[in-house]
Amino acid sequence: MRGACGPRRTRRSRGWTRTWGRASCRGRGGAERMASVGEIPLGSIDTVFLDLDGCVWFGDELADGAVEVVEGLRSSGRRVVFLTNTSYMRAATVAAKLRRLGIDAATDDVVLPVEVLGDHPALRDGPRVWYFGPDGVRDAVAEVAELAQRPEDAELVLLGRDTSLRYDDLTDALGVLVRGGRLLALNVDPQVPIGGGRVVPGIGAIAAALTYASGVRAEVVGKPSATFFEAAMRRYGATAERSVMIGDTLDSDIAGGLGVGMRTVLLGYGSPSALEPPPVPDHHVPDLRAAWALLAGATEAG
Amino acid sequence: MRGACGPRRTRRSRGWTRTWGRASCRGRGGAERMASVGEIPLGSIDTVFLDLDGCVWFGDELADGAVEVVEGLRSSGRRVVFLTNTSYMRAATVAAKLRRLGIDAATDDVVLPVEVLGDHPALRDGPRVWYFGPDGVRDAVAEVAELAQRPEDAELVLLGRDTSLRYDDLTDALGVLVRGGRLLALNVDPQVPIGGGRVVPGIGAIAAALTYASGVRAEVVGKPSATFFEAAMRRYGATAERSVMIGDTLDSDIAGGLGVGMRTVLLGYGSPSALEPPPVPDHHVPDLRAAWALLAGATEAG
Repeated sequence: MRGACGPRRTRRSRGWTRTWGRASCRGRGGAERMASVGEIPLGSIDTVFLDLDGCVWFGDELADGAVEVVEGLRSSGRRVVFLTNTSYMRAATVAAKLRRLGIDAATDDVVLPVEVLGDHPALRDGPRVWYFGPDGVRDAVAEVAELAQRPEDAELVLLGRDTSLRYDDLTDALGVLVRGGRLLALNVDPQVPIGGGRVVPGIGAIAAALTYASGVRAEVVGKPSATFFEAAMRRYGATAERSVMIGDTLDSDIAGGLGVGMRTVLLGYGSPSALEPPPVPDHHVPDLRAAWALLAGATEAG
Repeated sequence: MRGACGPRRTRRSRGWTRTWGRASCRGRGGAERMASVGEIPLGSIDTVFLDLDGCVWFGDELADGAVEVVEGLRSSGRRVVFLTNTSYMRAATVAAKLRRLGIDAATDDVVLPVEVLGDHPALRDGPRVWYFGPDGVRDAVAEVAELAQRPEDAELVLLGRDTSLRYDDLTDALGVLVRGGRLLALNVDPQVPIGGGRVVPGIGAIAAALTYASGVRAEVVGKPSATFFEAAMRRYGATAERSVMIGDTLDSDIAGGLGVGMRTVLLGYGSPSALEPPPVPDHHVPDLRAAWALLAGATEAG
């Protein structure tokens, strides 16, 4: 779905355009038909990267069949990695939430932007960082970067989702940027669902405001950045050829997976794209159970 | 018109490119040389639309020669109209500030977005409005629109520059937009200079955040929207052919003036463009005195 024209340019302007170019799989023909499309047999997949929000869980509610699907994937010999853009928790907290909801998960099974922050090229030269985001994540940032005490001393703005953000904070961040600072965002998600069909602005919205005001493009730590996917693959010794990314968001999950050459499976029908052209997933199924059927069918066929 | 599509397009390239498309405007040959460029003789101009911030004043300081230039323009038989994107004052307050700084001005000499808000097509069907902006402007909005008491009741978000804005306010506005509401911005300026070389985020930055999060494009009340320029011309019985827009901002003053067919004069060299291609002013001079020389020279030549 092409969705709205609004974000499209903003995001394209950040250089998110990747080369998709794969055979179109726009049809909505159900899992069986989908399974026959594409160049890489799903039976050859051994690492399954799974998005969380909108895929494994919706807020605090587990997706239908999530426990069985994760167990089924593991039983079929695949490694399941939870690859999420979550910016308000550490990996250990995410794993604990998964366990609380009934899914077996260790901290090591979870990859999220703040945990690979130290790998990001923008931090290579040790810039002093002006951080926006939840306090619980601040320690993780401080582990890999020097936090500036005042915006005047900062050389980089790092955006997490800071729900206490005010206009004056935007002014502080803008000051860093107009003085030549870089803008780094844990993710650039447009909005975050908070349950009951309600949404709140994502980090991408704040990044868009600062980019518009300063002309400085946001660099992205999490999905869809290739460095994020590559860091995740490196950690598990996975290769793009033998990995699949399953998620509900075209512009982070699908664009990111395709960007590094992974096979991709889009869940659900609600994900708009702001990219031009929009990314085309290899497979498109309604939900997690159907994704599992797709992989299971491929295994049997193989 | 180029600038009207709001932040998404406006910030697209955001490369702050200063490459004008026209060789004649690139040089800095001074007013005399510039005056020879263009198709409409400046001597035929009878209405001068003058931007304020960065042109007539810088914060609370008058631009060099501003008093003489305004008087000179009037003495030469031209009407001077102050056409500003200011969103935190009413016209009467702007006129009072001009007088305080030494420039003769009546309320009627000033046109700013909130004063022509009622003309905007987005308000035609009487939507309930969720307003962000200074209290001093709220009354002006209430004169022409019904203000919603809760965001849940609103059908349109109207953005002024609200320096008390918080994340929760963005959430409220986003709620209106995802329910199908429209987004209207008094202006879409990227940043506002506050003196001492410092800047704060403009309304355009907040609009960009909401557009990114919701996919809803911002409609613009003020510059560069054609409805704004047309309303201003109507008020003074001016025609585009016999009007000139003088301002320091490519994407609001110049794009807007060109959009309705006015002659345009860009002041200064610091105005970046995010439009592609960037608008090309008919004339480009360093400051207000040079603009005056341009018009005076044309008068003499004519």
